Amino acid sequence: MAAGARSGRRPGTSDTRDQILSAAREEFARAGYDAATVRAVAASAGVDTALVHYYFGTKEKLFLAVMDAPFDPRQYVDSVLQGPRDRIAERLLRTALDLWDSPAGTAAVAVLRSSMAHDRSAALLREFLLKRALQPIAESMEPDPELARWRANLVATQLMGLASMRYLLAIEPLASASHERIIDMIAPNLQRYLTGDLCR
Amino acid sequence: MAAGARSGRRPGTSDTRDQILSAAREEFARAGYDAATVRAVAASAGVDTALVHYYFGTKEKLFLAVMDAPFDPRQYVDSVLQGPRDRIAERLLRTALDLWDSPAGTAAVAVLRSSMAHDRSAALLREFLLKRALQPIAESMEPDPELARWRANLVATQLMGLASMRYLLAIEPLASASHERIIDMIAPNLQRYLTGDLCR
Repeated sequence: MAAGARSGRRPGTSDTRDQILSAAREEFARAGYDAATVRAVAASAGVDTALVHYYFGTKEKLFLAVMDAPFDPRQYVDSVLQGPRDRIAERLLRTALDLWDSPAGTAAVAVLRSSMAHDRSAALLREFLLKRALQPIAESMEPDPELARWRANLVATQLMGLASMRYLLAIEPLASASHERIIDMIAPNLQRYLTGDLCR
Repeated sequence: MAAGARSGRRPGTSDTRDQILSAAREEFARAGYDAATVRAVAASAGVDTALVHYYFGTKEKLFLAVMDAPFDPRQYVDSVLQGPRDRIAERLLRTALDLWDSPAGTAAVAVLRSSMAHDRSAALLREFLLKRALQPIAESMEPDPELARWRANLVATQLMGLASMRYLLAIEPLASASHERIIDMIAPNLQRYLTGDLCR
């Protein structure tokens, strides 16, 4: 297949690419990100594994394509993790708000909207949000794996609640507020979820 | 019309009722709860105002019918407000979780799901959630009207984020956790939004 690509011959048609995407969507939703395999996606699409790699590269990139993700969360995770521990919530919140209010963010909000309405998209968003973004951050803050999962879940409730209230329901004054105002209000709560004492 | 009702004759048909509901849905979504009038709903449905009252009673009850609400939030608001101020978040959270995990809650979660996906439903949920439930609570806690609106907004981000992560995305461990565990984790954050210092 790669040889075909290099010689300029297109292996398969754009229908094939769509078939792979559709099979991948099913597989990620069914098995979750960790258990999903490129092999299973290829088998379900009726193509060779190499063709999946040809079109999409790695499993991670295939996942981003399925999510129609306009960005790779990993680069943001790294920059959020750089800096003082007691201000990680502020960095996470600033990064999220910058992203959501960017042109790419409009696409992300559309993904959020449809994910709420459809079970399959919900499964994909769950994988994306937790496995690719929030769990790596929580695990850097919290050595206990079970507590790290809780921290990631709690951060998800606050961040997704903020996104859906600011962009989907557009409640005021939140929808029109500046990033700094929102950070003032919400960062202390997010900081408790990431590094604070969780038991009363 | 009322005379007709008492004599057992039905004024209009069930089509009329549906027409009124549909006009009301438009009107509440367009004008918001406060500015919407029964008169405008009646005009838009092409019926007499008295017929709207005959079918639905007050504007508030019409709104609950439009939301297909299985409960009236006002009774819950009153019970949340009764008790010590420094435990209001715990009572609000316990009330919300009990409600969401009840049979009526299943319907409420369905409303939440569709509200995220459709602008018109989003406008209705916004009115319902803030005007009927969270703003009355925030106003009881906070004398400054602008800050009370912020408190209600912040509580909305946390509560709706919790509902969507627990029920729509069903992330774990949150989706399977007991109410008490969730209250331990989230009540302190919600309490800050309701009665704490919001500026860093």
